[in-house]
Amino acid sequence: MSDLFDALVSSPEVEEAFSDAALLAAMLRFEVALASAEARVGIIPESVAAALASITPEAFDVDDIARKARASATPAIPFVETLTAAVAAKDRDAANFVHRGATSQDVTDTALVLCLRQARKPLEGSHQRIDAALRRLSNDHADTVMLARTLLQPAPPTTFGLKAAGWLGSVARAHQALSDAFDRACVLQFGGASGTLAALESNGLAVAEHLALELDLPLPEAPWHAHRDRFASLVACCGVYAGAIAKVARDIALLMQAEVAEVSEPGGGSSTMPHKRNPAGCVSALAAASRLPGLVATYLSGMAQEHERGAGGLQAEWATIVTTLTSTCAAAAALASVTGNLRVDSARMRRAIDDTRGAVFAERAMMRLAPALGRDAAARIVAAAVAVSARGESFAAAIATNSEANGALTDDERRTLESPDRYLGVAEHFRRRLTGEGRK
Amino acid sequence: MSDLFDALVSSPEVEEAFSDAALLAAMLRFEVALASAEARVGIIPESVAAALASITPEAFDVDDIARKARASATPAIPFVETLTAAVAAKDRDAANFVHRGATSQDVTDTALVLCLRQARKPLEGSHQRIDAALRRLSNDHADTVMLARTLLQPAPPTTFGLKAAGWLGSVARAHQALSDAFDRACVLQFGGASGTLAALESNGLAVAEHLALELDLPLPEAPWHAHRDRFASLVACCGVYAGAIAKVARDIALLMQAEVAEVSEPGGGSSTMPHKRNPAGCVSALAAASRLPGLVATYLSGMAQEHERGAGGLQAEWATIVTTLTSTCAAAAALASVTGNLRVDSARMRRAIDDTRGAVFAERAMMRLAPALGRDAAARIVAAAVAVSARGESFAAAIATNSEANGALTDDERRTLESPDRYLGVAEHFRRRLTGEGRK
Amino acid sequence: MSDLFDALVSSPEVEEAFSDAALLAAMLRFEVALASAEARVGIIPESVAAALASITPEAFDVDDIARKARASATPAIPFVETLTAAVAAKDRDAANFVHRGATSQDVTDTALVLCLRQARKPLEGSHQRIDAALRRLSNDHADTVMLARTLLQPAPPTTFGLKAAGWLGSVARAHQALSDAFDRACVLQFGGASGTLAALESNGLAVAEHLALELDLPLPEAPWHAHRDRFASLVACCGVYAGAIAKVARDIALLMQAEVAEVSEPGGGSSTMPHKRNPAGCVSALAAASRLPGLVATYLSGMAQEHERGAGGLQAEWATIVTTLTSTCAAAAALASVTGNLRVDSARMRRAIDDTRGAVFAERAMMRLAPALGRDAAARIVAAAVAVSARGESFAAAIATNSEANGALTDDERRTLESPDRYLGVAEHFRRRLTGEGRK
Amino acid sequence: MSDLFDALVSSPEVEEAFSDAALLAAMLRFEVALASAEARVGIIPESVAAALASITPEAFDVDDIARKARASATPAIPFVETLTAAVAAKDRDAANFVHRGATSQDVTDTALVLCLRQARKPLEGSHQRIDAALRRLSNDHADTVMLARTLLQPAPPTTFGLKAAGWLGSVARAHQALSDAFDRACVLQFGGASGTLAALESNGLAVAEHLALELDLPLPEAPWHAHRDRFASLVACCGVYAGAIAKVARDIALLMQAEVAEVSEPGGGSSTMPHKRNPAGCVSALAAASRLPGLVATYLSGMAQEHERGAGGLQAEWATIVTTLTSTCAAAAALASVTGNLRVDSARMRRAIDDTRGAVFAERAMMRLAPALGRDAAARIVAAAVAVSARGESFAAAIATNSEANGALTDDERRTLESPDRYLGVAEHFRRRLTGEGRK
Repeated sequence: MSDLFDALVSSPEVEEAFSDAALLAAMLRFEVALASAEARVGIIPESVAAALASITPEAFDVDDIARKARASATPAIPFVETLTAAVAAKDRDAANFVHRGATSQDVTDTALVLCLRQARKPLEGSHQRIDAALRRLSNDHADTVMLARTLLQPAPPTTFGLKAAGWLGSVARAHQALSDAFDRACVLQFGGASGTLAALESNGLAVAEHLALELDLPLPEAPWHAHRDRFASLVACCGVYAGAIAKVARDIALLMQAEVAEVSEPGGGSSTMPHKRNPAGCVSALAAASRLPGLVATYLSGMAQEHERGAGGLQAEWATIVTTLTSTCAAAAALASVTGNLRVDSARMRRAIDDTRGAVFAERAMMRLAPALGRDAAARIVAAAVAVSARGESFAAAIATNSEANGALTDDERRTLESPDRYLGVAEHFRRRLTGEGRK
Repeated sequence: MSDLFDALVSSPEVEEAFSDAALLAAMLRFEVALASAEARVGIIPESVAAALASITPEAFDVDDIARKARASATPAIPFVETLTAAVAAKDRDAANFVHRGATSQDVTDTALVLCLRQARKPLEGSHQRIDAALRRLSNDHADTVMLARTLLQPAPPTTFGLKAAGWLGSVARAHQALSDAFDRACVLQFGGASGTLAALESNGLAVAEHLALELDLPLPEAPWHAHRDRFASLVACCGVYAGAIAKVARDIALLMQAEVAEVSEPGGGSSTMPHKRNPAGCVSALAAASRLPGLVATYLSGMAQEHERGAGGLQAEWATIVTTLTSTCAAAAALASVTGNLRVDSARMRRAIDDTRGAVFAERAMMRLAPALGRDAAARIVAAAVAVSARGESFAAAIATNSEANGALTDDERRTLESPDRYLGVAEHFRRRLTGEGRK
Repeated sequence: MSDLFDALVSSPEVEEAFSDAALLAAMLRFEVALASAEARVGIIPESVAAALASITPEAFDVDDIARKARASATPAIPFVETLTAAVAAKDRDAANFVHRGATSQDVTDTALVLCLRQARKPLEGSHQRIDAALRRLSNDHADTVMLARTLLQPAPPTTFGLKAAGWLGSVARAHQALSDAFDRACVLQFGGASGTLAALESNGLAVAEHLALELDLPLPEAPWHAHRDRFASLVACCGVYAGAIAKVARDIALLMQAEVAEVSEPGGGSSTMPHKRNPAGCVSALAAASRLPGLVATYLSGMAQEHERGAGGLQAEWATIVTTLTSTCAAAAALASVTGNLRVDSARMRRAIDDTRGAVFAERAMMRLAPALGRDAAARIVAAAVAVSARGESFAAAIATNSEANGALTDDERRTLESPDRYLGVAEHFRRRLTGEGRK
Repeated sequence: MSDLFDALVSSPEVEEAFSDAALLAAMLRFEVALASAEARVGIIPESVAAALASITPEAFDVDDIARKARASATPAIPFVETLTAAVAAKDRDAANFVHRGATSQDVTDTALVLCLRQARKPLEGSHQRIDAALRRLSNDHADTVMLARTLLQPAPPTTFGLKAAGWLGSVARAHQALSDAFDRACVLQFGGASGTLAALESNGLAVAEHLALELDLPLPEAPWHAHRDRFASLVACCGVYAGAIAKVARDIALLMQAEVAEVSEPGGGSSTMPHKRNPAGCVSALAAASRLPGLVATYLSGMAQEHERGAGGLQAEWATIVTTLTSTCAAAAALASVTGNLRVDSARMRRAIDDTRGAVFAERAMMRLAPALGRDAAARIVAAAVAVSARGESFAAAIATNSEANGALTDDERRTLESPDRYLGVAEHFRRRLTGEGRK
C-alpha cells in the first residue's frame, strides 16, 4: 500500500507497531517463548529456544512470505518453514521441535496481540494530550458565554467551558471502554490444530501457562480460534472512540468557518489560494475517523467463522484490525494537535449572541410570560418580538413595548432579558460534574 | 413497514416494546414525571401532573403526529402540541406548565431509554435459554468425540462438549458486555434547549434529580444531547453479541448438511419439496444477525453530531436503534429455539472421524516420529501414509508398514494411533474452564 | 415496527407499495398468472386460475403467516398453504394445481419485483420535482455571485447558478444509473425447486414465457435464485443517489446557518424555542440518506449465498431492500420539498464576499503578480495584503500601496481586483453544460 | 502499512498501480500536461512543460510529503512546493508558471484517475481468466448431474454445467456494470480553486480541452470536486462484482468439504497437519471480497461533501478507493486461480444423489400423484416414502409398494423416478442462454 495514498488517514507511530519487522519479531517471539515453555515443562530440549533466539527478522524474505501466504491463506506456514530451515542450518535436531504443538493461528493471533499492545501506546499518548487540552480549555473558559446551536441554528447561550467539558466527557467515556476492551483482547492464543492442544498430550495446560508468563499475556479459559468476540469488541470500541473524536472535530471545523470564527486551529494552507487557513487538523481527524464505521461492519460481518477455524472471515481480519488501529490513532493524533493549539475568540462568541438581537432569549420570555398571561397570549407576544428582532431591532425592547408583557416582568427581568450570563441555568454545575471537579 | 417483509428478521416480543402505543406511553410518562418533579421542587402547581396523568396514548393520532414530525424533524413537537391541547381541555391553567423547561430531545431520548429497558427483557429471556441449552449440551456431550474442522476440512478430533462450551463462552462474554452497555445507556436525558436547564434557572439540578427518581433512571453527570457514545456502545455490543450468535448458527447449519448430519434442529419444510428439512432456525438467526454490522456502521457514522443538537445524524437514530434491538432479539430468539431443541447424533460424529481412515491423526504421527527420525524423514513417511488413507485404507496400518516408523512407536501408540479418545489433549480442561465447572 | 420511530426516515407513499396488503396482492398475482400460463400451455385445467383469481388478500391472516414464516424461514410456505386451502374450499380439484412447479423463492422474489415497480413511482415523482427545482434555481441565479467555500473556508467566488447546476448534475447522473438498475432488476424469477423447472418437464420455458407476459416482466436468461447481483446493483444505486441528495441537503443546511443565511427552506420550529427556524427538510433528507451506506453494506455482505438457495443472506434481504427504497424515497421527497421552496438571498451572498475584504481574490493577485515579479516576491506582497484584510481593511488597497505590485497591474485590474463578477472564469459555460442548455 | 498484514487481501499487480512511484508519476504527468496545454493556448511559455518533464518521481521525498500532507490535509501542497523548487533550480522563470490555475484537488483527483486506469488492467486480466474457466467448466459438464442444494439441504438435481453457467452469468453481469463505471469515472478533474477556472480567465475551457487530450481522458461537463457520484458508482460496482465472486468461492469451498468432495482446488496445507488440503484460493477470495461492503459504506458515507471542497469526506477517499481496487483485484485473482485449476468429481456428484435414496425426487412424485390422487392423499404417500428413504431404503420402491400410487404412474415413470437425468427440466436451455450459445 502506498504511504502517500494512506498518509491522511494513518499515523507513523502506529504504523511502526504493524510494520513487517514488528510483525516478524512478534511471530519470532511467540516461537521462542513456546520453545522455552516446552523446555521448562521438559518435553523438548533446552537448545531449541536458544537456536530460535538467534534468528532475527532479517532472516525472512517478506515478499516471498507474502506470496506463499496467498497460496496457503496464512503467512504462518511460510514463516514456520523459513524458520525451521534457519534453525536447521544451525542445529539440525532443534529444527525437529520448532513450532511444536502449535497451529498457524496460534502464532498469527498471538503475534497480532503483541503488536496491538505496542499500538496501544501512541494511542494512549494522543488520548492523554486530548484529555489535558480539553480539561484546560474547559477550565479556562468556564465563564465564556457562547451560542448553543441546535440543528445548526442559534439557541440560548451555553459556555465554552461546558461545551469543552461535554467533548471531554464523551471522549473520556469512550476511551475507558476502549481501554477495557484492550485489556480483554490482549490475551494468549494457544490451542494447537483443533483447540485441544492434543499434540502436547497431558502437558498442554502447563505449556500454555508458561507460555503466557513468557509473553506476559493473560491466559484465557480456552483457545478462541473461531471466537472473535474479544477482537470484535476492541474494534467496535475503536469505532465509538473515533466517533466521539469526530464529533469534536466537526464542532471545531464548524466554529472555525469564516462566518463564525469563534475558534481556530493552526490549520493548513492551499496550493493556489494564499489567503486560505483550512481546518486541516479537524479535517484529518474527520477523514481518519470516517473509516471506522465501515471497518467495524467488516469485522462484525466476519465473526460467523466456520467450526474450529474460519474460511474467509478470519483471513480478512488482519488488514481490518491494523487499519482500525491505524485510523483511530491518526484521528486521535490529529485531534490532540487541534485541541492542544486551539485559539478561542471569546469576544466573537459574545458578539454572535448579540447578533441575534435577543431572539435566542425567546424561550426565556415564554417561561416568564406563559404562567402570567397564558400560553397562547404569551406565544403571540413573543412571536411578534422575534419578528422585530429579525428586522434588526432588540427583542427585549419589543417585549417591553407590550404593556401586558411588561407588567408580567420584574425590573430585573426586563433589564437582563438579553443577558447571556443570566440565562445559563446550571451550566457550571454540569461542567464540574463532567470534569470531575468539586461542585460549586 | 410491512409485518411480512420484516417477519424473518424481527421478533414480536420486542416489537411490542417499540410499538406506537409503547412509545407514546413512554413520552407521556416523561411529561408526567417532569410535572411531578417540578411540582415537588415548587416551581409549578401540583395540578399539572394530575392533568397530564389523565391523558392516555389514545389521545394521539399517530398518523397526524408522524406527518407533522416529518415537517419539524421531530415527533416531540406535534406530541407536545397535542398533549398541551388535551390538558388545556381539562385544565386551562395547567396547560401553561406542560413540558416546562424541557426540550424535544429530552422527551424523545428519555422515552427511547424507557422503551429500551422494556426491550431488554425478551432479549434477556432468550439469552438465558441459550445459556442453559449450551451448558446442558456441553455437559451431556463432554465425552462425545467429533471432528474438528478448520477451513472446512477435517482436523484432529475434539469433543462436542468443548465445541458447545466454546459457543457458550463467546455468547456469554458478548452478553456480559451487552448488559453493561445497557446499564450505561439507560440514563435520564434532561438538559433543556441548550443543555443548561436555563429555563429552570437555579432549580435545574433539583428537578433533574427528582425526575430521575420518578423514572427510576440514573442521572448522568450532564445532559448528553449530542454525545451519543452510550447508545453507540449499546448498538455496537448488540453487533458483537449477534456476531457470536451467528457463529453458533452457522456451525449448526453446516453440521446439519445432509452430508454431515451430526446435529439437527427441528427446522422447516419446503413449499414444493416434501422431503426437505431445512435449518430454518439457524437461517433465521443468521438472517437477523446479518443486519447488525450495517446498523452499527450507520449508528457510528451518525455520531459526529453538530454542536448542541445534530442535524441529520440524530434524526436517523431512532430507526437504527429500534432495528438493532429488534434484529438482535430475533437472532437470540431463533438460536434459543435451535439450541433448546438440538438433536445430536454421536454415532455419526464418530463415523466422520473413521471416514478419514486415520488421516486426521497425521499430526499425531508427526509428533511421535519427528523427534525420533528427524522432521524430513518423518514428513515423507506420514505423507505416504496420508496418500494411502486417501485411497481408502488405514493411515495407521500404512505407518506400521514402515519399519523405521514402526520402531519409533510404542505398542500402545501403534494400537491407539487412530483412537480419537486418545488424542483429545486437554479438551476437557478447557471445557470445564469455559463452563465454569470445577476442573477434573 | 412503529410508525413513529420510523416517521423521520420513511415516506408514506412508498410504504404503501410495501404494505402487507400490497405484498399479499403481489404474491397472489404471481400465483394467478402462473396458473394462467400453465393453462395456456395446457398442463393444468383452466379452472385453477379462475379459482385463484377469486381469492383476495383479506383471506390471509398476516400475524399467522408472519409467525409461520419464522418457523419455515419463508412466508411463501404458509402463504401457499393458506391459498391452497382457500382454493380447495371453492374447487377441490383446482387445489391440486396451485403453485405447481414453482418454489417459494419464485413467488417471494417475483412479488418483491412487483412491489419495487410500484415503489419506483413515488421515487420518480420526487426526482422530477428536484430536477425541475434545481434547473429553475440555476437559471434564475446564473448571475448571482456567492462565495465558493472549500474545507468550509471562503474561496474565490462562484455563482449560485453553477452551484445549483452542480447539484443537478450529480443528482441527475445518479438518477440515471438508478433508473437503469431498476430496469435490470425488475425481471421475472421462475425456476422451481432447483432452478431447472424440472417439475414442468419440457414445458418450463414455455410456461416461463407466458408467465413473464402475464406479469409484464422481462424474462431473464435463467432463474437467479442465488445470484443477487441485479438487486445488489439496485440497492447500491439507491446508495449513490441518496449520497448525491445528502450532498445538496448538507450544503443547504450549512448555507442556512444564521451566520451565513444565504438560503432558507421553510423548515420547522422547536418545542421550547419560539425563535427557532430549523432546516427540518434538509435534516430529514440527511437522516434518511444516512441509512443507505449501512443498508448497501448489509446487502452486499449477504450476496455470497450458498448453492441454489442461500441460508441466511437471502432471508435478510426483504427487510433490507424495503428499507432501502423507503429511505431513498424519504430522502428524495424531503429534498424535493426543500428545493421547491428554497428562498435565496442574493444580497447576503454578495455581502459575504465583501466581508472577506478582498482576501478571496489573493489567488487572482498571485496570477497577475507572479509572472511579473516572480513567485516568491509576489507571494510576500500578497501575504502582506491578506494580513491587512484580516485586520478589516481592503486587500486591493493594500496591494496598491506596494509600488512594484501596483506597476504590474493594469488600471482595469487594479479597479476590479475585488469585483466578483470579473473573476468567474468559465462558470457560466460549466453551468450551461451541466443544465444542457445551449452554450453561450 | 505492512505487506504481511495485507498479503491475504491484496494483490501485487494492483498494488503497483497505486505505489508511491506510480502516484507521483501520475501527479507529475498532470502538471506536465497542464503546462503543455497552457502553452498551446498561449498563456505560459513553452519552456515550462520542458522543465517539468525533466523532473522524475525520485525528486520527491515520500516521507516528507506524507508528513506535510498531514499538516495541510492534502499531499498536493507539499508536492507542488517540491516540484516548484525543483523546476526553479533548473529554470527560475518557469517556476512561476507551475500548477498555474489548478487547485490541489485537480492534481490529486486526476492522478487517482490515471492510477485507476492502470489498476483496471490486472483486474481485467483476472476477469478474463475467470470467464474463460467458467465457460469451459460449464461446457465440459453440461451433462454432469449433481444435487442442487437449497438452504444447505439436498434438492432435486441440476447439472454442474448449469451451476457454472449461473456463476458465469452473475460474474459477467457484474463485470459489465463495473466496466461501464470505470468508463464513467475515468474523466479529467480540472476546475481551479472554486470550480470556475477563474485564474485562467476566459481560457479555462480551451486549456481544459487540451489537457484532457494530453492525458487521453474524457472532459466532463464541468469540474466535479465535491460531486463524487462517479467514484461512488465505481466503488459500488466493485462491491457488487466482489459479491458475485464471493458467491462462487463460497460454493466451491462448500463443495470441497471432505464430506462432499465434489470439486477441489489446488489449495494449501497446514503448519501442523500434514493431511490437510485447504481451499486456500476460495478462502483468499472470500477474505478479500469481505472487505468490500464496509468500503462501499465508507465511500457512500463520505459523499455529502461540504460546498466546493469537502472537509473530511474527501480526504478519506484515497485510502478507500485504493483498498477497494486492491481487494477486488485480489478476490478476482484468487478466483481466477481457483476456477482455472478446479477438479470436478462427476462420480462423486452422482453418488451424492444416490445417497439420498431417491428422497430428492419427492417433488417429482408429488407432481405425478397429486393430480391423480388429490394433494392430501399424495402428500401422505410421499411422506411415508420419504420416511422409508431416511431409513436407508429406496424412495421409489416405497412408492411402488402403494398400489394407488403405483397405479397412477406409467411404467416409464416408475422405472425412472430416481433417474437424475430424467428430472432436469430445461437446465440445458438455461445453461445455453447464460453462456450465450445457440439454443438446443
